[in-house]
Amino acid sequence: MNWLLPEHLADALPSEAAQIERLRRRLLDRCRVHGYELVMPPLLEHLDSLLTGSGQDLKLRTFKLVDQISGRTLGVRADMTPQVARIDAHLLNRQGVTRLCYCGSVLHTLPASLAASREPIQLGAELFGHAGVAADREVIRLMADVLSCAGVPAARIDLGHVGVFRALADAAGLDGELEGALLQLLQAKDVPSLRDRCRTLAEPFASALLALPDLYGGVETLAAARLALPDLAPIAAALDTLRQLQASLPDLPLSFDLADLRGYHYHNGVVFAAYHPAFSSAVALGGRYDGVGRSFGRDRPATGFSLDLRELARLAASPASPGAVLAPNVAASAALAKAIAVLREQGEIVVERLSAETGSEGPVCDRQLVEDNGQWVIEAINRNGCNG
Amino acid sequence: MNWLLPEHLADALPSEAAQIERLRRRLLDRCRVHGYELVMPPLLEHLDSLLTGSGQDLKLRTFKLVDQISGRTLGVRADMTPQVARIDAHLLNRQGVTRLCYCGSVLHTLPASLAASREPIQLGAELFGHAGVAADREVIRLMADVLSCAGVPAARIDLGHVGVFRALADAAGLDGELEGALLQLLQAKDVPSLRDRCRTLAEPFASALLALPDLYGGVETLAAARLALPDLAPIAAALDTLRQLQASLPDLPLSFDLADLRGYHYHNGVVFAAYHPAFSSAVALGGRYDGVGRSFGRDRPATGFSLDLRELARLAASPASPGAVLAPNVAASAALAKAIAVLREQGEIVVERLSAETGSEGPVCDRQLVEDNGQWVIEAINRNGCNG
Repeated sequence: MNWLLPEHLADALPSEAAQIERLRRRLLDRCRVHGYELVMPPLLEHLDSLLTGSGQDLKLRTFKLVDQISGRTLGVRADMTPQVARIDAHLLNRQGVTRLCYCGSVLHTLPASLAASREPIQLGAELFGHAGVAADREVIRLMADVLSCAGVPAARIDLGHVGVFRALADAAGLDGELEGALLQLLQAKDVPSLRDRCRTLAEPFASALLALPDLYGGVETLAAARLALPDLAPIAAALDTLRQLQASLPDLPLSFDLADLRGYHYHNGVVFAAYHPAFSSAVALGGRYDGVGRSFGRDRPATGFSLDLRELARLAASPASPGAVLAPNVAASAALAKAIAVLREQGEIVVERLSAETGSEGPVCDRQLVEDNGQWVIEAINRNGCNG
Repeated sequence: MNWLLPEHLADALPSEAAQIERLRRRLLDRCRVHGYELVMPPLLEHLDSLLTGSGQDLKLRTFKLVDQISGRTLGVRADMTPQVARIDAHLLNRQGVTRLCYCGSVLHTLPASLAASREPIQLGAELFGHAGVAADREVIRLMADVLSCAGVPAARIDLGHVGVFRALADAAGLDGELEGALLQLLQAKDVPSLRDRCRTLAEPFASALLALPDLYGGVETLAAARLALPDLAPIAAALDTLRQLQASLPDLPLSFDLADLRGYHYHNGVVFAAYHPAFSSAVALGGRYDGVGRSFGRDRPATGFSLDLRELARLAASPASPGAVLAPNVAASAALAKAIAVLREQGEIVVERLSAETGSEGPVCDRQLVEDNGQWVIEAINRNGCNG
């Protein structure tokens, strides 16, 4: 039974792998023309740098190993974002705006959901060095552009802002335990339990926290938030940022969700999530996380998004497989070798017949190279598979 | 110090990452037009399937983990070849010839050499289902083609055949321990110690084993081997295979090395290694390994090669970085947004200026979009970096 894979891990066979590869190239190229430079951090790092700025959830999801060279504990990356922030903070050491993108496997000890892979292929883009709303706008637009490019345009992009809950928690003087409990209840939109936990809190904070789960919907949500939430400077600033984003991205299907607090430990500003009807959770996620560079010794504003290319490849339509050309054994003739080389330069798949006895499977040969008066020409064939 | 990476692991920063990505695409495309289909096996597998058919060396180089779901021991792949053989043997279950290629990170507990990375990026191609010399020829030609395509053409391709040593070991009745010892001495070309260990062996086997380190060089090596080695059927067959390969690949810089026994536990036929003057070890390696599929319950002839894309990227000449176009803030004008979109569709990198205060680094902007009588046009600029 040694060909069975561990649960929640799978091979990508030719058609799926071709789809992932096609999207990988297309999406990285899209990031590239927006000015984002590709970086490739390693699969393994010291555990403490890998978990910089991340919450308990990522700690539990990270596989740990012992380094035989140093004896220190290493982690297999479960998220590439902190790695890319480390690259910006230390390796590039640039003063101005830095735009980076990446694509690679990450590993999770346990799957994020019943249907999830433990080896998502994370693709993302991060913008460092700019704290303004223009940077968030650029990243949200890039995320939308990347999804359209994949043939999976976002049907809805939810915007939130962790500054709202943070301001309420600070003003209400919540201790860490109660803050954590309320956070979980808000995430779960568990209003009865939320009401219960808010009983001990002073007004206007109890009402404000209870209002958050309903602050969800179109641009009218922002006006409703202004009425429902106390007049605190950070809340006004957060709502103003969301309004500016909405005004400057009129062509995107934006909506608002002030109770979206995913990655609360990590994010400190606008957060966003893109949805597609064929997929129950978000297809791409992102937000501002200015705090992460500080842990690497260099405080840099940061905003970005990422997605799982493996999931995206399932949603995107598969292109038709190209047909291949069957060629006789190349050793037979220099003219044939030349004809094959020319076809391959043109991007044609040319499968060489190895012997008459065995058949070849894989690319479907719909044409073959045949000799006609000393010239090698292509003629159509109507068979399934290449007789190799 | 949490930005320091473990030894023998490194980030690929923008210029190196761009080079790796460029070669990755080019080389996988090359495999594709030869009829090789891309597959993507997982980073983690059950340890026993990952180590199928491999020697002690790979066991020691494989990182081990415990699966929190099953409690079983998992390994992080240190070599993708057994994974691809598993895919051929079980998942595709094809009867005829199957051609597969792959590219991905592998991890090693200890580096293969002082300068080596513990995370090579392995790229390779495997041909399953054909036991004949035509399959070895196809794979050797593909390896040469792939290296040329990377701009690192092989200066020398050494061919060997593990059947020669195996036949001598069998005929001389060597026990496992002595066979292993002689194997190591032959690999190290340690002739004095080899002579010492061969003293107890009968002739003609002692002389034959001692002759192996000298059976190295051009096509004359095969004639010398016929004289120096006993007339055993497997040796004659091995030498005949090598002669056929030499005759059918006249344009490749082939030489022979009958003491090359790398991967002896794994290989069972022709082995080959490509060399380049700028690199002390082989840039690409391969050979026949018909035994591996058997361990997965399905005996399939197999031959293939692989290389480390990270090393290859260091040897290949870096292309010049393309210049970028600097654009004012996109929110300013729909006509500007359109102009930017058109440029990006054409593959141009367009960096949007986020604000006057901060500079942007990364792609060098050598042109900018400016408004001229209501039209957005490109004009040259002479600065380093993009003011973002």
